[in-house]
Amino acid sequence: MAAWGERLAGVRGVLLDISGVLYDGGEGGGAAIAGSVEAVARLKRSRLKVRFCTNESQKSRADLVGLLRRLGFDVSEGEVTAPAPAACLILKQRGLRPHLLVHDGVRSEFDQIDTSNPNCVVIADAGEGFSYQNMNKAFQVLMELENPVLFSLGKGRYYKETSGLMLDVGPYMKALEYACGIEAEVVGKPSPEFFKSALQEMGVEAHEAIMIGDDIVGDVGGAQRYGMRALQVRTGKFRYLRPQGYLCPPGGPLQSMDMSYRAGGICHAQLWPQD
Amino acid sequence: MAAWGERLAGVRGVLLDISGVLYDGGEGGGAAIAGSVEAVARLKRSRLKVRFCTNESQKSRADLVGLLRRLGFDVSEGEVTAPAPAACLILKQRGLRPHLLVHDGVRSEFDQIDTSNPNCVVIADAGEGFSYQNMNKAFQVLMELENPVLFSLGKGRYYKETSGLMLDVGPYMKALEYACGIEAEVVGKPSPEFFKSALQEMGVEAHEAIMIGDDIVGDVGGAQRYGMRALQVRTGKFRYLRPQGYLCPPGGPLQSMDMSYRAGGICHAQLWPQD
Repeated sequence: MAAWGERLAGVRGVLLDISGVLYDGGEGGGAAIAGSVEAVARLKRSRLKVRFCTNESQKSRADLVGLLRRLGFDVSEGEVTAPAPAACLILKQRGLRPHLLVHDGVRSEFDQIDTSNPNCVVIADAGEGFSYQNMNKAFQVLMELENPVLFSLGKGRYYKETSGLMLDVGPYMKALEYACGIEAEVVGKPSPEFFKSALQEMGVEAHEAIMIGDDIVGDVGGAQRYGMRALQVRTGKFRYLRPQGYLCPPGGPLQSMDMSYRAGGICHAQLWPQD
Repeated sequence: MAAWGERLAGVRGVLLDISGVLYDGGEGGGAAIAGSVEAVARLKRSRLKVRFCTNESQKSRADLVGLLRRLGFDVSEGEVTAPAPAACLILKQRGLRPHLLVHDGVRSEFDQIDTSNPNCVVIADAGEGFSYQNMNKAFQVLMELENPVLFSLGKGRYYKETSGLMLDVGPYMKALEYACGIEAEVVGKPSPEFFKSALQEMGVEAHEAIMIGDDIVGDVGGAQRYGMRALQVRTGKFRYLRPQGYLCPPGGPLQSMDMSYRAGGICHAQLWPQD
């Protein structure tokens, strides 16, 4: 196994996932993961550029940053790449009016978007909002469209809260895909466009960047397919991953990289580069 | 296109789907589809054996038959093949104790099943029971099992009620499959075992039987793959089918058969064999 210095040669920018890497959500907002507040502080003191690249779609960026700051993280709204603002850009560019199946906490991100007479559906991690009635309404809107368009803010399977594992938006995206016989457009990791915009905002090329996350598909796989390096932390949902759940081909670069990190016994605190 | 007499040569048994073929569910139990009550009566007066083969999983067989009888159909409980009793048989044979995510209306079918300390999950068309909380609970049960086993009573995409289209169990099966990285075992159409038991109960061979339904995948595709003939009615969910929603390979026997029926302009009243 290559030494860490060698693996990180030429890295100029670090993209940090948030949920499961910096903190676990839950009652009262959740809790910072041990060592993460200091790790972010050290990264920011280093020569590296840092950006937060999240699929969080239950909260607006403002609320997410407010929460992180209360937990002690040094982060500002302008440093966060999140799917809701990216979706708004796409909706405007394509003249689309969404039916929104999203959490109330993120609805403010869509304040400037026309939602009358919808010609597409946007789903995000709606949590309790994923009622049968709400899912059925989104389904009916799609079925009434000549060309049904479904956007999903990320496609994560689940995430970890302090109380346990929680279903993310991905399963509900799959449900609507199957019900309507369509394929959703994913806005967020692992979409290449999403990584592209995060890198542009950092001013760093893909081969100069490393993505740090807990999701083997959204974070590690997506970043590697975009030509970035990636590191999977052993916090958040890490320990719950099942081999049969991997989307990557067996023996492919994604799996072997993941395996070598695991074999290396990397733990959260060891992930970060030295000052 | 072959004449109807030729297509139906050698048919000794007719399997009838129920929802979308005999009636559309909805407020106050739903409504019989025009011509269906008389069609069933004519079939029963004919030389043909008749069996009702349904994926209905919101109601017990007793409740379903009670409803159909109130709508005027000549049907008894012993003539119905339904997924909940079939699932109970499998659970007993394999010593499995299910966590049930099902509608209250069908729960009585599982009265004799041990549900303590569950080692599998059974989902059915739970309707409003498909809340986020209930889905998350089923997901958590599966994730805690070493070898997660998920049974789905049918895998229909949606069905039609008098008020409009409604999501069926299939999308929720897909959601849990994706969340857990597993594949569900389907009990009900289009599972070969399900058609087999319906045919055994009729005493008819597959090549002597015809399945009549509104679902191109569950009814038509499943029956054809089991060696039966099949007919798709133009009631129920028929008109809502999207070409991209078909699961069969393009140009395969399923699609071409469906297309020829459509081209033939068959409507519900024309489907039934003459006395």
